[in-house]
Amino acid sequence: MASSLLTTPSQTLAPTPSAARARGSSPPAAAQVSFSSPRLPARRALRVRASVAIEKEVPENEAPTTFLREDGSGAGSGSVRERFEGMIRRVQGEICAALEEADGSGKRFVEDVWSRPGGGGGISRVLQDGNVFEKAGVNVSVVYGVMPPDAYRAAKGAAKNGAADGHKAGPVPFFAAGISSVLHPKNPFAPTLHFNYRYFETDAPKDVPGAPRSWWFGGGTDLTPSYLIEEDVKHFHSVQKQACDKFDPSFYPRFKKWCDDYFYIKHRNERRGLGGIFFDDLNDYDQDMLLNFATECAGSVIPAYLPIIERRKDTPFNEEQKAWQQVRRGRYVEFNLVYDRGTTFGLKTGGRIESILVSLPLTARWEYDHKPEEGSEEWKLLDACINPKEWL
Amino acid sequence: MASSLLTTPSQTLAPTPSAARARGSSPPAAAQVSFSSPRLPARRALRVRASVAIEKEVPENEAPTTFLREDGSGAGSGSVRERFEGMIRRVQGEICAALEEADGSGKRFVEDVWSRPGGGGGISRVLQDGNVFEKAGVNVSVVYGVMPPDAYRAAKGAAKNGAADGHKAGPVPFFAAGISSVLHPKNPFAPTLHFNYRYFETDAPKDVPGAPRSWWFGGGTDLTPSYLIEEDVKHFHSVQKQACDKFDPSFYPRFKKWCDDYFYIKHRNERRGLGGIFFDDLNDYDQDMLLNFATECAGSVIPAYLPIIERRKDTPFNEEQKAWQQVRRGRYVEFNLVYDRGTTFGLKTGGRIESILVSLPLTARWEYDHKPEEGSEEWKLLDACINPKEWL
Repeated sequence: MASSLLTTPSQTLAPTPSAARARGSSPPAAAQVSFSSPRLPARRALRVRASVAIEKEVPENEAPTTFLREDGSGAGSGSVRERFEGMIRRVQGEICAALEEADGSGKRFVEDVWSRPGGGGGISRVLQDGNVFEKAGVNVSVVYGVMPPDAYRAAKGAAKNGAADGHKAGPVPFFAAGISSVLHPKNPFAPTLHFNYRYFETDAPKDVPGAPRSWWFGGGTDLTPSYLIEEDVKHFHSVQKQACDKFDPSFYPRFKKWCDDYFYIKHRNERRGLGGIFFDDLNDYDQDMLLNFATECAGSVIPAYLPIIERRKDTPFNEEQKAWQQVRRGRYVEFNLVYDRGTTFGLKTGGRIESILVSLPLTARWEYDHKPEEGSEEWKLLDACINPKEWL
Repeated sequence: MASSLLTTPSQTLAPTPSAARARGSSPPAAAQVSFSSPRLPARRALRVRASVAIEKEVPENEAPTTFLREDGSGAGSGSVRERFEGMIRRVQGEICAALEEADGSGKRFVEDVWSRPGGGGGISRVLQDGNVFEKAGVNVSVVYGVMPPDAYRAAKGAAKNGAADGHKAGPVPFFAAGISSVLHPKNPFAPTLHFNYRYFETDAPKDVPGAPRSWWFGGGTDLTPSYLIEEDVKHFHSVQKQACDKFDPSFYPRFKKWCDDYFYIKHRNERRGLGGIFFDDLNDYDQDMLLNFATECAGSVIPAYLPIIERRKDTPFNEEQKAWQQVRRGRYVEFNLVYDRGTTFGLKTGGRIESILVSLPLTARWEYDHKPEEGSEEWKLLDACINPKEWL
């Protein structure tokens, strides 16, 4: 369980306050899930399930220049931490601006800013019920936390911990920063997009002499259409491949397969969508190279996605096509609530629910025993979710 | 994990075939999740996660007189197994007939019948998109299976197993029968109902001399409204209390609290609905008495629920009220996919998905950071879900 922390941090680690909207109108309110009041029944879940306790967050009226601690390890140091935070915040701004323009409704993203007394914080932005987008969430977060030794071992391998078998290692302080986003358009021919890029560092475990400091990158971008339009899927994958090929020719085939494997709804024997790229625990390359790679991937979101949205946002559709989109949305919910490690971990450890579940669609549908007719457009999409294809 | 088997068997243990509808028109089809073909990727989930393997089911054109094995342990013997199966099948028929009449659309429940070569089977009935009901599912099942020793110990306590510490007990054959139902009406003032009654028996573990045969009852009936109408909730709870009081005055208070505790959405710090009764592992009373109690409870579903439906099915409502119902449906999905032990266990062990997920509503909604205004009707319902009340 705890290793999920290492896989999808920007959801896992993005508990935010209930309100305090920079651009919204709601008054600030106390966070609903408290980590400090022993009287709240929600504590029960934490006592039983939590293996990582995250400090309670505080609403902020505006975003600070940096969420990094002023301890020389990040802010102002030109460190990877600092450069990664700068990158995800810049990308958040660029993507939200591009999405607002594509939406064309004049609606703006509503923003929640939060911080933690001990350092770290985040910015959640959500645009709901626009012209083009049913629900679009783009979150960044910076988290200082403590990882249980099991999670550290799961991530880095027991050997790297330097601990002999049976040695009881202590908790490992970590730093994580990430951007995470899910975009659900209204038109059933316009696909849903998810992306998430994250950077992790752990301190060296203090009680294990010689054990190293660790760092790694993770992330990916994947496409979830309700209808298979090959032109769109090929365009999307080709932009992912271009981003990958600038760094290593092995990246695209490896991360494409990893994506197909990760977004697997086991109980349906089908993938959530038509994939893209996914990677985790990446540290066996030059650190600057991987920072540049993550930056390239995050920068590829708009060129990979918006041309598809522009082409499909006004495609005429009927009620049956909308209903099929809603059935696929139901599968999205099933994946996120049952399998996604960031979501399930976040729910168990008391992360801010609204930030974690912003990934869920505005609306979804479950029809009993729904089976598309063989050969139909719905069946073609489902077939591609069951049997992942090579698109390029 | 495995102990969940003991808590919500009729979902857990109700994998059914893909088709073969007694009243429907779809042709029989091969089951989508195969337990026998090693080439299907779905096997991966089973290999990693499953602790109970359930034999593959076969579609049947009509329901047999009994699903019990002809081995003298059930069919024709006047046994509790036989009487329980008779009861749940009679109740399924009565409830479906009453619901069809209340729905008034002329729509009939679509029926799927299935059996397993080694004994057992089930009948799933679903009515979808009627006049009154958005989705109504009423399933019965009879299952012969093998329970891992952990599950047996979790259910009965290690001491009852008779095994000394460290003794490696073998798998325990079990019998389970149950009725399970979720009814989602369309009108936001008409509440959702769930009920489930089940009977379990285990063989005596063969490798543990002196360990006993076990049996127990479980179940409950609970109400999930979108609006708090006290008259309805009091009526519902008073019928539950009447059923309980015929057997033991301690039952209603004890099982009411158990229900509030079980249907708890931890990450929201709220209950799914306004409760009812829930009990499990009940065997410390006379077996006939508990069979009569389960029969009384199952027989109370219609008098507890239908008067509420009759009163609320035609109540005028506006778009905002429908949207709030959809938000509460979203919470229903969250509970069932994240917490319900029958659902999560069923998904992991390869039960028939459509039978397990028939409990999900036809439609649901997730609005970012939705908070009802304090004092509003929506807020009153939410408050009662956060702070369970005594209704009688």
